[in-house]
Amino acid sequence: MEDCIFCKIAKGEIPSAKVYENDRVFAFLDIAPVSKGHTIVIPKEHHKDLLDLPDDLLAETAKALKKIAKAIVKAVNADGFNIGKNNGAAAGQAVMHSHFHIIPRFENDGLNPWPQGKYEEGEMEKTAEDIKSLL
Amino acid sequence: MEDCIFCKIAKGEIPSAKVYENDRVFAFLDIAPVSKGHTIVIPKEHHKDLLDLPDDLLAETAKALKKIAKAIVKAVNADGFNIGKNNGAAAGQAVMHSHFHIIPRFENDGLNPWPQGKYEEGEMEKTAEDIKSLL
Repeated sequence: MEDCIFCKIAKGEIPSAKVYENDRVFAFLDIAPVSKGHTIVIPKEHHKDLLDLPDDLLAETAKALKKIAKAIVKAVNADGFNIGKNNGAAAGQAVMHSHFHIIPRFENDGLNPWPQGKYEEGEMEKTAEDIKSLL
Repeated sequence: MEDCIFCKIAKGEIPSAKVYENDRVFAFLDIAPVSKGHTIVIPKEHHKDLLDLPDDLLAETAKALKKIAKAIVKAVNADGFNIGKNNGAAAGQAVMHSHFHIIPRFENDGLNPWPQGKYEEGEMEKTAEDIKSLL
């Protein structure tokens, strides 16, 4: 898509620290990394977010994600890693070209990203029913 | 796997607020939700993390993830959602049965999970080379 920075990166029109590329997928380092080796993995084809990604392209991207994560863990000697995917501006998606993050993690790195909450009585069951009714 | 809580949930041996199930995938609400509708999606088959998931099962799980996320967004009227997958204890993985999180997000919900860092000069290129050499 015109004016999409990730489309331009995938085409090599904007430089990036590329780590992997195949026919349909491109991966490069995030320039504002949570940790060393933090990588962005994108389908080359432009789609906005997870809900817009065709299943076959999602499968291809997920397969590449696994392959790349394995190499990152070795390269930076990580103890683990997070996969993240932000969908929509409210979820922190900054570039509206569907992408996954691979974030290497290290013992006691001090990151504890998600606070845990709880449901009121009956609210969990009600919520599950609401979702189930749409599936 | 014996003594795996998610295997038991998928088999119905431990109750859960189930939202979806097919032949290979099971989804239920997280009991300590980041936000209302926070859902855990698992392959029924036991695998430790992303690196251990066979590609075809990963594809099936990702496809279900998309389908379920769509329903969650509608059900709780979310403005966006995060997909998260913690791999390894250092990354916050609490149950060693590969699983994805779907976390509904709302405008100005105050969550800002990942701090941004930066590379020293030359460090980004070096890191990319280290990863690339393993792919």
